[in-house]
Amino acid sequence: MADEFELIRRYLAPLAAGNPAALDLTDDAAIFQPPSGEDLAIAADAMVAGIHFLPDDPPESVGRKLLRVNLSDLAAMGARPLGYLTTLALPPAEAERWLAGLAAGLAEDQRDFGLALLGGDLTRSEAPPTISLTILGALPRGRSLRRGAARAGDRLFVSGSIGDATLGLAVLQGALAPADSAARDALVRRYRLPEPRVALGRALLERDLARAAIDLSDGLLADAGHVAAASGLGLRIEQARVPRSPAAAALLAEQPDLAERLPSGGDDYELLFCVAPERVPAVEALSAELGLALTEIGAAEPGKGVTLIDAEGRALRPGQSGWQHF
Amino acid sequence: MADEFELIRRYLAPLAAGNPAALDLTDDAAIFQPPSGEDLAIAADAMVAGIHFLPDDPPESVGRKLLRVNLSDLAAMGARPLGYLTTLALPPAEAERWLAGLAAGLAEDQRDFGLALLGGDLTRSEAPPTISLTILGALPRGRSLRRGAARAGDRLFVSGSIGDATLGLAVLQGALAPADSAARDALVRRYRLPEPRVALGRALLERDLARAAIDLSDGLLADAGHVAAASGLGLRIEQARVPRSPAAAALLAEQPDLAERLPSGGDDYELLFCVAPERVPAVEALSAELGLALTEIGAAEPGKGVTLIDAEGRALRPGQSGWQHF
Repeated sequence: MADEFELIRRYLAPLAAGNPAALDLTDDAAIFQPPSGEDLAIAADAMVAGIHFLPDDPPESVGRKLLRVNLSDLAAMGARPLGYLTTLALPPAEAERWLAGLAAGLAEDQRDFGLALLGGDLTRSEAPPTISLTILGALPRGRSLRRGAARAGDRLFVSGSIGDATLGLAVLQGALAPADSAARDALVRRYRLPEPRVALGRALLERDLARAAIDLSDGLLADAGHVAAASGLGLRIEQARVPRSPAAAALLAEQPDLAERLPSGGDDYELLFCVAPERVPAVEALSAELGLALTEIGAAEPGKGVTLIDAEGRALRPGQSGWQHF
Repeated sequence: MADEFELIRRYLAPLAAGNPAALDLTDDAAIFQPPSGEDLAIAADAMVAGIHFLPDDPPESVGRKLLRVNLSDLAAMGARPLGYLTTLALPPAEAERWLAGLAAGLAEDQRDFGLALLGGDLTRSEAPPTISLTILGALPRGRSLRRGAARAGDRLFVSGSIGDATLGLAVLQGALAPADSAARDALVRRYRLPEPRVALGRALLERDLARAAIDLSDGLLADAGHVAAASGLGLRIEQARVPRSPAAAALLAEQPDLAERLPSGGDDYELLFCVAPERVPAVEALSAELGLALTEIGAAEPGKGVTLIDAEGRALRPGQSGWQHF
């Protein structure tokens, strides 16, 4: 078994190559020159085997998901990705397999999203893999998308489609078995590899299209609840308008009872955002430009909390409002 | 059991109070305005129960140690602390006790070291606590203490005293039982609560006193080896000159065989640094100014690796050169 320094040299240093700030991962800290005249957005997330990913998820997709979950936090602020640090606590017997997989996945995604490794820590653990990532992004000085800036009358939008990750997890757990293997693969992929909406977040901020935004990690209802609470108002969501992927729509047609779980399922990493009515046409134009569905699903109104409305206009009361970490 | 958001509000948000960048921990990322005209030093370290701390170490000291280990990385670069993020993976049954202890310890230390919480993540784990911290510091633009800048002829200095943490760990593990309870407490404290040499690191950089520096985390020999390798030269360390605390000295007088373990023991978090001969008087003046022992223990010379010299001038060959993470 190679020692820590050899493992870093072999698997992690290539992720930092070409990024002088990382000092080839051979010093005590990275030295990072922040882009002048901009603010930094900084977020950190941890993932634990058995909690945030399944023990037999491939390390390659786990590494990519960890990076993407953090990229999604930057997207929700409207920030441009700059770099990241990661701490990896791995059981010795699995360390090299995990490192090889994590590094391969991170290499692919950091190229696609235009950022590189700055530093971190590799350590032994007796427990299943626990990995953490801190991401840095740039924001125009004094500007950002925030949760608390929605106003009554704003239109509520969501990107992409909602509920696929929850269905993908159910497939992996054996609770759901779609007959169509392409649908199955599409759902599993959404669970394992969310698409952080970085370009969308930046455009919403730069073009002043959204007043408030959040990324959907805990679930549509829970995260909408965060926006409602931070903004001091209520959000009304029309269930029938919540966009579904073809795979999810097909499953829902077969098993209508699934609809109840979808508004509260987490891990979609789409953006939920509030738009002043006069900016709606510009949001529709942005949707066409990005080739990404941006769907109006409700509105902000005086009051508090999130109200889910069914097709007949009745308020639904879903059982669990989102992913609870404890 | 309170949910994640309530736990964050209760225990972590107070650590971010007064730091507007943290947005009260209620948004997707912190928004941090980097000090203009300076570089950022950024480091991350993780600690795992049973590996980096003992399962019955108090959470309060574990939190402080995690922060101090990261502060020590900043010290080794000569950086001024600015803020930190932390990710905490805790078993639900112990989460509230751990959070309360971690937060109390972090509150005390962040006040002493002049920084505050910027953000992070709190998550459930089925495994023992695994905690990670990313720290940000400021450096004068284009300047830092680095490992690879030593030159042959430089004098090798170390701060404080060496070996206490290893002895403190041995005490906690029951392998060592000093009769003197004050000595016992002093050694345990050094293991649990290292003193990051932040003021020293900043002065070494600002006054241009050190050519190369590193903090002693893996052990004197291992970390000296990192400096030797990065600088492309050899380091000679005279064992008799390695400074010992009164508690360690008393134990060594009783059990001389302990001497062999001390050069390789980790966790001291003192600074090891290389000084051009003409700057030695200024280093001695700094020692008096800081009230901190700065001891010359050897020199840099052509060659490679680290040579430990005994009182008779013979090269010793210690068995294990330092803490290996795998």
